[in-house]
Amino acid sequence: MLGRTYDDQVCSIARALEVVGERWSLLIVRDALLGLRRFDEFQGSLGIARNVLTDRLNKLVEQDVFRRVRYQDRPARYEYRLTPMGEELFLPLLALMYWGDRHLAGEAGPPRVVEHAGCGGVVVERLTCSACGETVPSGQVRTRPGPALAKRFD
Amino acid sequence: MLGRTYDDQVCSIARALEVVGERWSLLIVRDALLGLRRFDEFQGSLGIARNVLTDRLNKLVEQDVFRRVRYQDRPARYEYRLTPMGEELFLPLLALMYWGDRHLAGEAGPPRVVEHAGCGGVVVERLTCSACGETVPSGQVRTRPGPALAKRFD
Repeated sequence: MLGRTYDDQVCSIARALEVVGERWSLLIVRDALLGLRRFDEFQGSLGIARNVLTDRLNKLVEQDVFRRVRYQDRPARYEYRLTPMGEELFLPLLALMYWGDRHLAGEAGPPRVVEHAGCGGVVVERLTCSACGETVPSGQVRTRPGPALAKRFD
Repeated sequence: MLGRTYDDQVCSIARALEVVGERWSLLIVRDALLGLRRFDEFQGSLGIARNVLTDRLNKLVEQDVFRRVRYQDRPARYEYRLTPMGEELFLPLLALMYWGDRHLAGEAGPPRVVEHAGCGGVVVERLTCSACGETVPSGQVRTRPGPALAKRFD
């Protein structure tokens, strides 16, 4: 974890990073979204030290990103499955991936393409206005304090 | 940095985390998107050690996320402005924020609300198919190796 040093930040980004901001954590989630479930699969994919992987997986289970499921009895063996909360990291990961594609992929191009299973078209991210339904360019976005911050000044 | 240990990962998520995955880095970018520019502003907002902040800002300048701009001559003073590449981190940060809002905000609710400047509606993220134009639920998404990975097996 991050030493709880983000704790005084009333901010959902800081809180998210408390859960998944530690080195390797988001790559473990990425691998799980790609179908990996077992310790040795993650270890083989990431090439990290086993004790580090154990630590990360345990913390992600504590934080409800993964659940640990027994899949064999003798000997007892466990696998790691994303919870619904963990599966919802798909969108932040995709956003990071597209950012990396645009700025860090170089001439070789994107390592991975994300398609619409329905028609094979490339999936893109859009900001949409839930009131008027329009696509919102990032220049037309503004933020204001929400309920949790507004209360501080009551 | 992450010790370049993600280097053998041909993956835009891993590459993105090489640039912004270090502790505090994404919160510095968040603050810059909210309008902060000067060292003391970042330091006051984040409450981190000055040497850590100096290190992070220098690395983010090296990586072309920020540029360092002289805004006063005697004495020379500098501020940190996001590059276009840095500004594009808005979408990954927003996605992390919404994930935190949904799963970590608790009863107090979201600390910050993102609105469409045009009409005041709440801005949401959508995956959209660039071919058929439909909104794509995450269950209808599939990934395949892109150009950079395909080449490896030529």
